[in-house]
Amino acid sequence: MSTTVVILAAGKGTRMRSSLPKVLQPLAGRPLLGHVIETAKKIKANNIITIFGHGGDLVQRAFAHENIQWVEQAEQLGTGHAVKVTLPVLPKQGVSLILSGDVPCVQQSTLQNLVDVSTQTGIGIVTLTLDDSTGYGRIVRVDNKIQAIVEHKDASDEQRQIKEINTGIYCVSNAKLHEWLPKLSNNNAQGEYYLTDIVAMALADGIEIASIQPELAFEVEGVNDRVQLAALEREFQAYQAKKLMQQGVHIIDPSRFDLRGELTVGQDVRIDINVIIEGHCTFGDNVEIGAGCVIKDTSIAAGTVVQPYSIFDKAVLGEAVQIGPFARLRPGAKLDNEVHIGNFVEVKNSTVGLGSKANHFAYLGDAEIGVSTNIGAGTITCNYDGANKHKTIIGDNAFIGTNNSLVAPIKIGHGATTGAGSVITHDVADNSLAFERAKQVSKENYQRPQKVKK
Amino acid sequence: MSTTVVILAAGKGTRMRSSLPKVLQPLAGRPLLGHVIETAKKIKANNIITIFGHGGDLVQRAFAHENIQWVEQAEQLGTGHAVKVTLPVLPKQGVSLILSGDVPCVQQSTLQNLVDVSTQTGIGIVTLTLDDSTGYGRIVRVDNKIQAIVEHKDASDEQRQIKEINTGIYCVSNAKLHEWLPKLSNNNAQGEYYLTDIVAMALADGIEIASIQPELAFEVEGVNDRVQLAALEREFQAYQAKKLMQQGVHIIDPSRFDLRGELTVGQDVRIDINVIIEGHCTFGDNVEIGAGCVIKDTSIAAGTVVQPYSIFDKAVLGEAVQIGPFARLRPGAKLDNEVHIGNFVEVKNSTVGLGSKANHFAYLGDAEIGVSTNIGAGTITCNYDGANKHKTIIGDNAFIGTNNSLVAPIKIGHGATTGAGSVITHDVADNSLAFERAKQVSKENYQRPQKVKK
Amino acid sequence: MSTTVVILAAGKGTRMRSSLPKVLQPLAGRPLLGHVIETAKKIKANNIITIFGHGGDLVQRAFAHENIQWVEQAEQLGTGHAVKVTLPVLPKQGVSLILSGDVPCVQQSTLQNLVDVSTQTGIGIVTLTLDDSTGYGRIVRVDNKIQAIVEHKDASDEQRQIKEINTGIYCVSNAKLHEWLPKLSNNNAQGEYYLTDIVAMALADGIEIASIQPELAFEVEGVNDRVQLAALEREFQAYQAKKLMQQGVHIIDPSRFDLRGELTVGQDVRIDINVIIEGHCTFGDNVEIGAGCVIKDTSIAAGTVVQPYSIFDKAVLGEAVQIGPFARLRPGAKLDNEVHIGNFVEVKNSTVGLGSKANHFAYLGDAEIGVSTNIGAGTITCNYDGANKHKTIIGDNAFIGTNNSLVAPIKIGHGATTGAGSVITHDVADNSLAFERAKQVSKENYQRPQKVKK
Repeated sequence: MSTTVVILAAGKGTRMRSSLPKVLQPLAGRPLLGHVIETAKKIKANNIITIFGHGGDLVQRAFAHENIQWVEQAEQLGTGHAVKVTLPVLPKQGVSLILSGDVPCVQQSTLQNLVDVSTQTGIGIVTLTLDDSTGYGRIVRVDNKIQAIVEHKDASDEQRQIKEINTGIYCVSNAKLHEWLPKLSNNNAQGEYYLTDIVAMALADGIEIASIQPELAFEVEGVNDRVQLAALEREFQAYQAKKLMQQGVHIIDPSRFDLRGELTVGQDVRIDINVIIEGHCTFGDNVEIGAGCVIKDTSIAAGTVVQPYSIFDKAVLGEAVQIGPFARLRPGAKLDNEVHIGNFVEVKNSTVGLGSKANHFAYLGDAEIGVSTNIGAGTITCNYDGANKHKTIIGDNAFIGTNNSLVAPIKIGHGATTGAGSVITHDVADNSLAFERAKQVSKENYQRPQKVKK
Repeated sequence: MSTTVVILAAGKGTRMRSSLPKVLQPLAGRPLLGHVIETAKKIKANNIITIFGHGGDLVQRAFAHENIQWVEQAEQLGTGHAVKVTLPVLPKQGVSLILSGDVPCVQQSTLQNLVDVSTQTGIGIVTLTLDDSTGYGRIVRVDNKIQAIVEHKDASDEQRQIKEINTGIYCVSNAKLHEWLPKLSNNNAQGEYYLTDIVAMALADGIEIASIQPELAFEVEGVNDRVQLAALEREFQAYQAKKLMQQGVHIIDPSRFDLRGELTVGQDVRIDINVIIEGHCTFGDNVEIGAGCVIKDTSIAAGTVVQPYSIFDKAVLGEAVQIGPFARLRPGAKLDNEVHIGNFVEVKNSTVGLGSKANHFAYLGDAEIGVSTNIGAGTITCNYDGANKHKTIIGDNAFIGTNNSLVAPIKIGHGATTGAGSVITHDVADNSLAFERAKQVSKENYQRPQKVKK
Repeated sequence: MSTTVVILAAGKGTRMRSSLPKVLQPLAGRPLLGHVIETAKKIKANNIITIFGHGGDLVQRAFAHENIQWVEQAEQLGTGHAVKVTLPVLPKQGVSLILSGDVPCVQQSTLQNLVDVSTQTGIGIVTLTLDDSTGYGRIVRVDNKIQAIVEHKDASDEQRQIKEINTGIYCVSNAKLHEWLPKLSNNNAQGEYYLTDIVAMALADGIEIASIQPELAFEVEGVNDRVQLAALEREFQAYQAKKLMQQGVHIIDPSRFDLRGELTVGQDVRIDINVIIEGHCTFGDNVEIGAGCVIKDTSIAAGTVVQPYSIFDKAVLGEAVQIGPFARLRPGAKLDNEVHIGNFVEVKNSTVGLGSKANHFAYLGDAEIGVSTNIGAGTITCNYDGANKHKTIIGDNAFIGTNNSLVAPIKIGHGATTGAGSVITHDVADNSLAFERAKQVSKENYQRPQKVKK
């Protein structure tokens, strides 16, 4: 059975009070529409048709890399109209899942269930049972079969007691969509074409309406303003945290955990409070992430301990690395096993070899550092001459003194030593000591400046 | 109609277990009493009378800058007694709003509604309907008209079912206060003068008691201990966050957002988790604030992106500035458009010109830096000679090498360059290169110190 | 009455998905079993018998310092079997409290109450009344006396309405345990020996079952997976925060407060959001801890203000110290009164005298610094020569310039001054000026490197 996913993404989202179209607002670091597209890809939809309108250029550009058929809904004349504009490109066979770009959290399993139950009858919907169903379209059943969907304002007092509501997520046979959608009318108070009306058409044709409920209520929550967006963000984060905890991750406080992407974990990973994980990250066995770390697109091997307030972006850390607090790894930082990186140290586009250390205030940029080398506190690779970037190469077992300035391009040999406070401008041979220093001078009974009277 | 605000602020607050009088305990960074005074000012009260008692000196000093009439309640003999001591200064005309210094969140709109409904009858109260009203004074109504306020301990079983309670916030005609308060009696179990008794006096006079309810329950919550203070802090913060979100601010987690002052925002401002905003701050369009930033009395122009864990105090940032993570701006830091300030950089009382950069470990104090200038990693303005502060002036298009010490007072010209590791003590002319460096020396086959056997 | 505590700690905890035995999983920084052992010690148990099984080596090693009798349960054949294996070492007199190593939060007062009510009858249990008791063993009472404990699956519809459940915490006379446990049978569906069966034996003997309820429900919550562990962590943290607030601590947000150990406080201590306190800490009167600080085994005297994102480990701070933000104190840092430590400063194994200052980017390691001394920005004690650590001693009223490297072992006298950028390798006499610096050289019309065309 071929499955098409049709995504309604034309709305402006006025209540977001944003210059961005609503479906581009981010949830967990990804646009709302991006979540729906990801789920469509997970269920291996044969094609994805997205209906754009407000801010369509921005929306299309944001997903230019995706295999999507874009259909414009120039005027927003209702949900039925939106799907109707797709008819020219909608396949004649198979089924369509009709989703909303602002209902981002619907899960793969729910959609697959929906397709499964809908295939036989030709139409199925996702419903939800709520404690307070006020305002929603109610599902009217007789003998457990759906007889109608009644909008709140049209519902009788008795119908308003119904707790089961329509979520607006449909799976419909494409043949039926081609049959029903042209017959939709906008002869109603709002002058809009309602997709819901196909349910009445199906019932009139004697077709039974299949239905399922989502596993979790937040799957069908829509986003109309920033308050709802923030609430859904927390529900989505709680859901992600729970899945990780069920895999065995020790998350100290799941309400203070933010995953904005994908995290792959080994056993006994421990994540302290207020950690943010972005992009694609991998943490090996026994990795510990201290409080407040922000880690993006980074791989951390087994046994590595990250102290609080470390920030990594596109970095690779080996096993049993000790790093932080206040360590910053920028793109291209590669730390081999057992490296130590201490507080207020920044590493960019550099490799640091097995067991080497930079424990305090160092900047390593465009550097290659061998094994068992020690970088002194306050030492800086002068990789930028104001116009170009140059490399610093340091061998194994080197000892770079404190407050050094290593003027790149430069090469410091194996076993080399540099004196404290040196500016190293010439290469240093293996096992040599290099230093740059004047003679220490002393003046006795020195009179320091005095406070100026004002 | 002239409006007086009378604020009860004499209580000690024993349960706070503090050396500070209760009304000086901070909520969202401002003393409880300060919130009430701000609201009194918003409704343009003609005069504000505050009744002090415990810690009165501290209380009066904390609000010495406010236009307040202070009245001492030497002994705390009840709420009625407190208002009674104001009679010598209380106007004869108009109405008085009677508020509590430990009920900080009552909103302007609620007080204005109360004044509106009270003016005709001469007395009105704020009531609240609670699911669990245990312990509170109940509002007894017949035909919807208030007949009595009955204290919990005096209430019949039937009355205890009443969910509507007295919040202790009154609006009363001053003429009536002058009439009723002298008649209050302390002939009760506690030996106290209860303000509530004026309700019975009004009813006895055939006066109808007007009433309103606050829009939000937390407006009438009082603070008696640290647990209540913390709970109210979260309610107040949630209220503030919601208002900002309704204005279009993207707050990633409103339960991890703290505003201790006022925030003015443009469109599409994004605030990540755990940001604290203090004093008066302004964020332009598209400003992004990273996780964990602490920003006080700072203005940030459009398009500026602040990376996590940056701390600003009395700073001004231009448009499209890139700053952080771990950046510190202290009072007087002024960054022009497109400035880049990187990690572990501190700026104090300095201006940085258009497009200039200090990307790593720099301290800029008492400096004026031109446009398109680059400050090397580890460079420090030596602005303090142990007694006085001096200025560092750097021109446009200068390139200051790494690990420089710029000994102020000093002037470095336009287009000037300094060598890495230099101590610059003499002014540098435009387009000159200045450096301070000894010759690099090398010793082959250097034997490093050996580990001492212990 | 002699009291034995018997702790069941043999379970594997498969659902934790960890290589660690369940009772070693940490709650608030301490293993689950550690909490139970601490409580056992608080009630002054005469002996503590712990039943180990899965991961027994690890468990015993973790508590090797505790006075515990270890009994192995080689096969896990039920709770009754677990207690039965202790019989060879279980005293004949007195009572035993039977606790679970994965129910960590039971409080001292609850256990003492249980012992008190159990002594007379010889058996008592802790029960709990739940809104939803589904799944738990129900307490069947007639005339308020316990008649039976009925497992959920064996309960009648009527019994399933019962809200009072068995928590599995018992106090039993040791004489009775010696009598009853050998009679336990595993003749049931699971083939296990249930401790609960002793209740039926007691009732059969005509013994009344005493019972109490815990003050707080979380005391009897068990931990079976990471989700439950995280939930209990928050409940425990909320409980600890509340106790501190009741003592008068101003915790800005108790849901963002983590105490993993013990905190002793003076009056008017203020703790901002996201502070983590570990080990044993003491904060004097008016101490303020800024947002995001991580403080371990540290003592902070009265009036000291800690700015955000400071990290302390085994440090001692005097009175009225000003420190942070982004300050790091490592073990052995001792700051005297009125010391100022600023941003990006690291102190390790060093003493800093009264009123001395290191306000920016300094590393003080293995140093002794006198009173009223100023350490310049970027100054580093070179305490490590690649093999050994050496001391830096600086006198009173010294002024160390910026970007100095102080090559230890070194001694700098009282009133001494060092020039900016110096590498100090020789001792500096009292009141001397020492500097190490080349002559500043200037080259006019310097042509900087040009961007290489690629």
